[in-house]
Amino acid sequence: MKALIGFSAFLLASASAFAQVPTIADKDLKIAAELRDEALKSSIGYKVVESLTTEVGPRMAGTPGDAAAVKWGVAKLEELGFDKVWTEPVTFPTWKRGTEKAEVIAPYPQPLVITALGFSVGTPKGGLTAEIIQFDTLEDLVKAPKGIAEGKIVFIKNRMKRARDGSGYGPAVSARGRGAVEAAKQGAEAILIRSIGTDSHRMAHTGMMRYEEGVKRIPAAALSAPDADLLENMTRRGKPITVKLDIDAQDGPDYTSHNVIGEIRGSEKPDEYVILGAHLDSWDLGTGALDDGAGIGITVAAAELIARLPERPKRSIRVIMFANEEQGLVGGKAYAEAHKDELKHIITAAESDFGAGKIWRLDSRVKQDAIPVVEKMVKVMEPLGITYGNNRAGGGPDLIPLRGYGISVFSLRQDGTDYFDYHHTPDDTFDKVDKESLDQNTAAYVVFAYLTAQMEGDFGFGLE
Amino acid sequence: MKALIGFSAFLLASASAFAQVPTIADKDLKIAAELRDEALKSSIGYKVVESLTTEVGPRMAGTPGDAAAVKWGVAKLEELGFDKVWTEPVTFPTWKRGTEKAEVIAPYPQPLVITALGFSVGTPKGGLTAEIIQFDTLEDLVKAPKGIAEGKIVFIKNRMKRARDGSGYGPAVSARGRGAVEAAKQGAEAILIRSIGTDSHRMAHTGMMRYEEGVKRIPAAALSAPDADLLENMTRRGKPITVKLDIDAQDGPDYTSHNVIGEIRGSEKPDEYVILGAHLDSWDLGTGALDDGAGIGITVAAAELIARLPERPKRSIRVIMFANEEQGLVGGKAYAEAHKDELKHIITAAESDFGAGKIWRLDSRVKQDAIPVVEKMVKVMEPLGITYGNNRAGGGPDLIPLRGYGISVFSLRQDGTDYFDYHHTPDDTFDKVDKESLDQNTAAYVVFAYLTAQMEGDFGFGLE
Repeated sequence: MKALIGFSAFLLASASAFAQVPTIADKDLKIAAELRDEALKSSIGYKVVESLTTEVGPRMAGTPGDAAAVKWGVAKLEELGFDKVWTEPVTFPTWKRGTEKAEVIAPYPQPLVITALGFSVGTPKGGLTAEIIQFDTLEDLVKAPKGIAEGKIVFIKNRMKRARDGSGYGPAVSARGRGAVEAAKQGAEAILIRSIGTDSHRMAHTGMMRYEEGVKRIPAAALSAPDADLLENMTRRGKPITVKLDIDAQDGPDYTSHNVIGEIRGSEKPDEYVILGAHLDSWDLGTGALDDGAGIGITVAAAELIARLPERPKRSIRVIMFANEEQGLVGGKAYAEAHKDELKHIITAAESDFGAGKIWRLDSRVKQDAIPVVEKMVKVMEPLGITYGNNRAGGGPDLIPLRGYGISVFSLRQDGTDYFDYHHTPDDTFDKVDKESLDQNTAAYVVFAYLTAQMEGDFGFGLE
Repeated sequence: MKALIGFSAFLLASASAFAQVPTIADKDLKIAAELRDEALKSSIGYKVVESLTTEVGPRMAGTPGDAAAVKWGVAKLEELGFDKVWTEPVTFPTWKRGTEKAEVIAPYPQPLVITALGFSVGTPKGGLTAEIIQFDTLEDLVKAPKGIAEGKIVFIKNRMKRARDGSGYGPAVSARGRGAVEAAKQGAEAILIRSIGTDSHRMAHTGMMRYEEGVKRIPAAALSAPDADLLENMTRRGKPITVKLDIDAQDGPDYTSHNVIGEIRGSEKPDEYVILGAHLDSWDLGTGALDDGAGIGITVAAAELIARLPERPKRSIRVIMFANEEQGLVGGKAYAEAHKDELKHIITAAESDFGAGKIWRLDSRVKQDAIPVVEKMVKVMEPLGITYGNNRAGGGPDLIPLRGYGISVFSLRQDGTDYFDYHHTPDDTFDKVDKESLDQNTAAYVVFAYLTAQMEGDFGFGLE
């Protein structure tokens, strides 16, 4: 059954035959509040992130760090007393970063700090030297006269905007994802983009890019913000700027990693479960403390706090450490595929994948008659500085495939003002994680997880 | 004649036979105030730094960037209308950075971000692998039982303290300068220090280190702050930590660079001059915007503002862009040696070499009866937020050799709270320069330069 979408209210209807108006017992609200306060005193989440970044560090999909992270994840969940810990296979193509150098050759010779974008091809051996052609935005490149970049290196100078909700990312990131394709269509030999980030440090931001069937595959890299400034300043002088790129990134063979799953087993309806998700892989440049070590720490800690209660919750709580989110939500897709016949078992889900900034808003995606229960949940989160947003939650990247099947999701929206200062750079390290903020996140997640595991009724299935 | 040093006043006496109590005309104070206000509206200094960092960039002593900077300096001073522009040779040994890699091999394999310290030797070809031995400070290493680091890599984890006046640098930097010698004396194969800096970014801070005759020359490198954290966190786990270093830095042949000098020629006493100093070289990692592009911009702009007046000042104003400050004040020593027979020509001197932060204090080093003139100078600087400090000014690094001969110097002390976030890193780039602060610096320097060029009398010679 399709949902009826109202203009002002975006109502979500339930497709379930078992539809039941959900309720939460006052006793459970009280326990949720106690768990929340306990979380604020806890440091498990912080310790988990420290452990992952110290003992594993970078864990790009398909690398030895990926394998080490899977091993670490299983051991950590067992050590923390999860009732059931297992892995599920996730297979994907791999990519390897090699040397990556860039320099201005003329008229103002100096080195540039770059990093190859994920799955970029390398330059010819010995490098590639060409003149720069600068565009304000990807759109300007697309709209420019056909063949304008013939034999040149396209440089897109667009700056991402800083915002608490990360809303600057979407408009900016298309230059990373589609830049190489559009530049190649215009005849370019390579593309350099200003890093998709909000900092002004000498570190370039990596991230995925895509090629298109039938379009020449050209090397794609990001410049650090100060290096993009430098090229802009050079370009303003009016003389042709020649740049040499030397990148030897390569595609690798397919690899099988694993989603790592830990469950606190429910006491009444053990086959129904709440998903707390985060992704275990990271990019290769940093130690993945914010992206997504923080999410791992928050979700593991929230479940662990519930496991400390004298009794198991009614439903199960399943922490999923997704494999290879960064290179295409591969772990999320594999989970949805593997579990598509038991979607009714998923009462709801939330993923933490936006760093360690404080949560300021809760969004839901539930059937309309479940809203009162969501409001009760928000009340328990209010002392954390969290208010209700709307019923159009996204849920998180690895939940997109499940959401496609209509499951209910929640978004515990974090303050991402600084998130894109570090995102996909070498600077994504443990020192950037603020313990107090991380604990606040855990507190919100434990309220969410406990109440959804305890409530009577459901949030709807087959939601749009 | 030796100065009498009082306990509370630190009086400085004059050794000059021509001692004359200095005075400043009210008319000159008025012009100085106008110059100050003009400087605040000016953007010459900012443009000069932009030009140097864009058109030259990194300019480590002895590199092609050094030669380009000398050429740039001469052209810039001529373009800005200095009356006389010339160069003086400065010869020194050179050093070249090569590949520099480090990684933890066991038990938690991951890469580390390091940078070799200036004049460090390389590791043996193929790298050097050894266990880490951690010390809190250089002093702890020195005091430890003899041979404690035999066959190991010393790691000094001491953190530099942030301070407006940069006072955290001195106590911390000895680990950089003397660490390799002390580690080698204790049997070590190499040394890693936590970067001498106040940031928490994934960039290591380079800077000079020294070897000692008769002590084994071992490789020396700095870890970025997050990497030093990482080693600390690993070490706390109690297992031996094995690290591999691969550094191929090398000494090079002697090289002759140049001090670049521009003069606004005095109208009454052209052979007497005020020195405005800054250094033209930088380290190789950044574009030397703060260290010391800012100093170049400030001093050039201050002199240029005076050159715009309808009449030349009474004395000459000499802007000296010192060669190779970073590797041992080589340009400063060469200037002092070349001009040691005409020290009486130098009425006073100040060097700007502490970034682009606002000036908050003026210190002097003048004979006691010149203090009233200094007080008048401070009055003109007061609207800039500058107060008087004391009569024990250092003057700046390149002025140390001249100060050894007893010349008068001034210190226009800048706010260096953030300076060591960027110092000697790739992050020392133009975006870190704040235009308003740079203009405030120029305003203070123009007051200083104009009043000392105009005043009657002198500040004393042979000062202690």
